[in-house]
Amino acid sequence: MKESEHWVGFDLGGTKMLSVVYDANFKPLGRSRKRTKGHEGQKAGLQRIVQTIEEALEDAGLKRKDVRGIGIGCPGPLDIKAGVIHQAPNLGWKNVPVRATLESEFKCPAVVANDVDSGVFGEYMFGAGKGANCVVGIFPGTGIGGGCVYRGQLIQGKNCTCMEIGHIPIMAEGPLDGAGNVGTLESLASRLAISSAAAAAAYRGQAPNLLADAGTDISNIRSGAIKDSIDKGDKVVRKIVEHAAGHLSRAVVTMVLLMAPECVVLGGGLVEAMPDIFVDEVTRQTRSQLLPAYRDVFKIVPARLGDDAAVLGAAAWARQSLRDAGKKS
Amino acid sequence: MKESEHWVGFDLGGTKMLSVVYDANFKPLGRSRKRTKGHEGQKAGLQRIVQTIEEALEDAGLKRKDVRGIGIGCPGPLDIKAGVIHQAPNLGWKNVPVRATLESEFKCPAVVANDVDSGVFGEYMFGAGKGANCVVGIFPGTGIGGGCVYRGQLIQGKNCTCMEIGHIPIMAEGPLDGAGNVGTLESLASRLAISSAAAAAAYRGQAPNLLADAGTDISNIRSGAIKDSIDKGDKVVRKIVEHAAGHLSRAVVTMVLLMAPECVVLGGGLVEAMPDIFVDEVTRQTRSQLLPAYRDVFKIVPARLGDDAAVLGAAAWARQSLRDAGKKS
Repeated sequence: MKESEHWVGFDLGGTKMLSVVYDANFKPLGRSRKRTKGHEGQKAGLQRIVQTIEEALEDAGLKRKDVRGIGIGCPGPLDIKAGVIHQAPNLGWKNVPVRATLESEFKCPAVVANDVDSGVFGEYMFGAGKGANCVVGIFPGTGIGGGCVYRGQLIQGKNCTCMEIGHIPIMAEGPLDGAGNVGTLESLASRLAISSAAAAAAYRGQAPNLLADAGTDISNIRSGAIKDSIDKGDKVVRKIVEHAAGHLSRAVVTMVLLMAPECVVLGGGLVEAMPDIFVDEVTRQTRSQLLPAYRDVFKIVPARLGDDAAVLGAAAWARQSLRDAGKKS
Repeated sequence: MKESEHWVGFDLGGTKMLSVVYDANFKPLGRSRKRTKGHEGQKAGLQRIVQTIEEALEDAGLKRKDVRGIGIGCPGPLDIKAGVIHQAPNLGWKNVPVRATLESEFKCPAVVANDVDSGVFGEYMFGAGKGANCVVGIFPGTGIGGGCVYRGQLIQGKNCTCMEIGHIPIMAEGPLDGAGNVGTLESLASRLAISSAAAAAAYRGQAPNLLADAGTDISNIRSGAIKDSIDKGDKVVRKIVEHAAGHLSRAVVTMVLLMAPECVVLGGGLVEAMPDIFVDEVTRQTRSQLLPAYRDVFKIVPARLGDDAAVLGAAAWARQSLRDAGKKS
């Protein structure tokens, strides 16, 4: 490895895009952030991606030719081999040739991964899951994202992403989720599920602080509002969060039994706002349901890298994928 | 690789033990089978294992020095690195140094794996899951065993086995399983769960053929009796099996969402007796619950190798593990 090689990480989110340029040791040298503006269409979107990378390079004082490779975390479903986003419902995009576009613009290899996978790989390489044989990441947000690094590799399908932890069935007769399925983890424990239950509690007059501060519109009941409501004494909201943590724990039980991770990383805005409630409740409820042989093989920890996990992980995954491909050929 | 190298596979079961000697292409050259007789204690048990391997070698016309390595599939929980069975409740054994015993007797490396994992690896190498990027195996029996081969490697914990598919939670308010947990896959869809429900139906007079042929003692209601009862027209027994297949399908949904296997292998006595009911019902019910992106990426197939899967898989896994270890050192 040349010490002079630089890597670009990119995180394509529903509302913002972020690019960071790293040196060979993954020290950040420059960055740029823009709103995604998915509604302007995918052609404009691809141009904004290229422009954001350009600006990050400028910020780092580097040129296109200095880039050894680009890693980009994208919302799924993806074709990870072809580097195409099949569909990004939040952006309204379809069949977007991300990899081909970046490779032709920057004349270097680009690696497309799922955004949550990128974040989990970031936490494995540089954050809360450093050095573990197996790391599972669970990130409750609007939905619930999941990912798994096993013996240094992201678990992925042959061409597609997987580790769809948010979609696994948890309760046979549970509520509907956004995909029309019943009782999935998302339907029970996502930020949206928690906000909806909290809004109903506010409407019923059971959460007076939440009602006063945020009302009953779930668009306003975000992670911070939920945390504030609990801090101010809305006991029912705390119960709602603990109940959701119970559902999360069922998914964690499943993941521990299947993969025996040493480390389960919980992340996302909700966990960032209330790390103690989530880590303590999920740990307690997970342990109580597990076979004795698995009770002490794992720890549950909050994510450490915040917004930088995905962009850092995407860059590091690009480096690793290109090295592994080099070894095989 | 020398063409003359021979591999020994071993399957340590609750009632019988089986050893097969293979040539370098995994053609079987000799075999031996004995009752396990766990009640005679683990020292006697280890001697029987050694003796069974001896007899398989004799049957193949080979000597100890001809053996390149031994792979042994054992009931868990195991320490796969140390090669020790922590506990085999069915045998009444504890802390059994399988690997050390075999290595000192046969002066060649021995690799200890979980018995179900060995079977799934066998199906991946030589049977129903040949060549897939990812194969998941689910084997309903007294309990429900599971395993997964991902990119040519068994998914295992750092030191322990994992892929405990039988123990994942399926129904929050379900029946108790043997480990004292509620609503696990085993509690709902094992051969024991099906036999118990069928015995109750016979007792109620709803399964006259089963009652006449096998009575209401679940020790007599084994896979063959269940199949015969359905063939003779006991509709409620068919419904019980289809209902269990529905629970299995929830576990398959989880596995497809997490690992995106191209191939899900169903095996064990129950599936062998009624492959069509299981494969058709689990396929139908799994597809109906899955996100569209995952509906067509997998097929569900019956196991092909029967009793030989574990012994063949153990031998092949030993070869692969020793080669991989050789590459690293």
